[in-house]
Amino acid sequence: MANESEGMNYAPKGIPNPVVKKGEFAFAAIGLDHGHIFGMCNGFTEAGADLKWVYDPDPKKVDFLVGRFPQAKKARSEEEIYEDQEVKLVAGAAITSERCALGLRAMAAGKDYITDKAPLTTLEQLDQAKEMVKKTQKKYMCYYSERLHVESAIFAGELIAQGAIGKVIQVMGMGPHRVGAPSTRPPWFFQKEKYGGILCDIGSHQIEQFLFYAGCKDAKVVHSQVANYNHPDFPELEDFGDAVLQGDNGATQYFRVDWFTPDGLQSWGDGRSFILGTEGFIEQRKYLNLGVKGSGGGHLFLANKNEESYYNVSGKVGYPYFGQLILDCMNRTENAMTQDHCFKAAELCVRAELQAVRLK
Amino acid sequence: MANESEGMNYAPKGIPNPVVKKGEFAFAAIGLDHGHIFGMCNGFTEAGADLKWVYDPDPKKVDFLVGRFPQAKKARSEEEIYEDQEVKLVAGAAITSERCALGLRAMAAGKDYITDKAPLTTLEQLDQAKEMVKKTQKKYMCYYSERLHVESAIFAGELIAQGAIGKVIQVMGMGPHRVGAPSTRPPWFFQKEKYGGILCDIGSHQIEQFLFYAGCKDAKVVHSQVANYNHPDFPELEDFGDAVLQGDNGATQYFRVDWFTPDGLQSWGDGRSFILGTEGFIEQRKYLNLGVKGSGGGHLFLANKNEESYYNVSGKVGYPYFGQLILDCMNRTENAMTQDHCFKAAELCVRAELQAVRLK
Repeated sequence: MANESEGMNYAPKGIPNPVVKKGEFAFAAIGLDHGHIFGMCNGFTEAGADLKWVYDPDPKKVDFLVGRFPQAKKARSEEEIYEDQEVKLVAGAAITSERCALGLRAMAAGKDYITDKAPLTTLEQLDQAKEMVKKTQKKYMCYYSERLHVESAIFAGELIAQGAIGKVIQVMGMGPHRVGAPSTRPPWFFQKEKYGGILCDIGSHQIEQFLFYAGCKDAKVVHSQVANYNHPDFPELEDFGDAVLQGDNGATQYFRVDWFTPDGLQSWGDGRSFILGTEGFIEQRKYLNLGVKGSGGGHLFLANKNEESYYNVSGKVGYPYFGQLILDCMNRTENAMTQDHCFKAAELCVRAELQAVRLK
Repeated sequence: MANESEGMNYAPKGIPNPVVKKGEFAFAAIGLDHGHIFGMCNGFTEAGADLKWVYDPDPKKVDFLVGRFPQAKKARSEEEIYEDQEVKLVAGAAITSERCALGLRAMAAGKDYITDKAPLTTLEQLDQAKEMVKKTQKKYMCYYSERLHVESAIFAGELIAQGAIGKVIQVMGMGPHRVGAPSTRPPWFFQKEKYGGILCDIGSHQIEQFLFYAGCKDAKVVHSQVANYNHPDFPELEDFGDAVLQGDNGATQYFRVDWFTPDGLQSWGDGRSFILGTEGFIEQRKYLNLGVKGSGGGHLFLANKNEESYYNVSGKVGYPYFGQLILDCMNRTENAMTQDHCFKAAELCVRAELQAVRLK
């Protein structure tokens, strides 16, 4: 059930492609504050994992998720889940500022952890998370859904790996979102300390994509800015932000995020990615093809020496991240994503926010 | 004759819409180093002006232009043109670093002046140009063709003026160009002191659009960067540049320019403009609709509260700038463009270049 009108409930469904048999890999969902938990549960169950437990202090949220995944049991506490040795992985979508604390508890209990983005909101939390990884050797992963759960984004990575556009020079991303009626948003959505600021929150998707597509191990934020242009009733909401990053290999990034998707648009956001290489470029129109009614997602455009092509990859590529991560958890490998990559994206989105010039 | 394969010879033809009768307004073309002179001559003659004289030290360039405009006479010198009292306006496309000197001569001779972009390459030239405007009350105008000679760009301005997207928050532009075979380019194209750097040269289009669409009278360059990523044979060519500007009214701009248009692309550059407003947004696909064969230019997309629409405005909007400027010259008005606006864009593109961080 992908609710296309708002990104927070966008939960892509893929082609089931199990990497494990039933009973081989159990996970639990704890912290259901953001609708991305649905997408995460879709991804892992399609890859063969069993959603064994669900917990949140709010029973209504638990009922809602269990309604979709009736195989899952309602836990009475986090501890009940932590005590279950069968549970290998905890997936969480807590309030952003509480995601690290949840992860620390899960990891201390011997579980790998994957959280909705942004995976944390402060550099202190990052230090704690790194320390816990060192101590427990458990994973602190992140659901950077705008790459990992978008078929054009997966396909773009494959094309780049094949050399279709040469060496990546710049990654430009636009991540507009629909704010929707305030009543549909929890109070924390409008509290900066909790959601982390726009560059940390929806900006985290963008930075992760830059590091991945450009193949950077490190980067610095050279300029960032935020504003509240048009939401005076919610003074802590940043409705606009952008940033320029320079990668350690000379590639750069620009991204812009905002909460200005207008009501007339067919979906929650006209997410784009433009990847410029020495030998060509790729454009992704992730969730819609602007001006084409009912276009759905999965639009990728490639231009290089030989071609100018349009690919509609909807339903054709799938989402390999979830299966890879299950196997990583079982085999202690890092094929889905390295811990360093996950933390670097987390660090940079926090730094982008900390450094941001306030425009308005 | 629009040569679609390279931007330098892109000379749009519009619907003739004369604002003056034959014999009422004569202009001359001096300095034919850049192919944009063809677009300028098209624009002014379609608006009713008479191309009376052509001069360049290179007779081959003169022959080429007069071949297209046989009504024009070949002058033996600039002075021959300056002495003709009928000539009201000099249009020039000299080497970029020489555009100001040409303008100063023309204005000192009592002519208004319009030059190809960038209109100058240094702040010293800007001071001289301002001084000459003060002294002579003549115009120093610029052919910022990526707005003034692009129908989607004109239409975008009309939509914004009508309030279609509310207040403009940000203008994002992409101005990729095809570098083509080096043999098709004059030596000065690769000499930075002469072409002014990428942010000054093709970046000038972008900055002018920002000031216009966002309605800024002033702005500052808060970050800019340039690189030569992949043209080691031409060390002074900057093949990539981008910049962030903050306008005096709180709106911002990001633009990226490059010389990486791949050979497989149907035209010389996938020029885009994304204009974000408080109530909606506009995308322009100026010269092609990526992935759609033979798409031509003039694609505009509008999303706001009421609609998500595609407009193909090719052949429907025309290019009012030329007629407005003819009338401005005759009536000493500023309807086509104010002198302040023209100079501010010129200043900022020079500053963007001066401040630029060198990436590679």
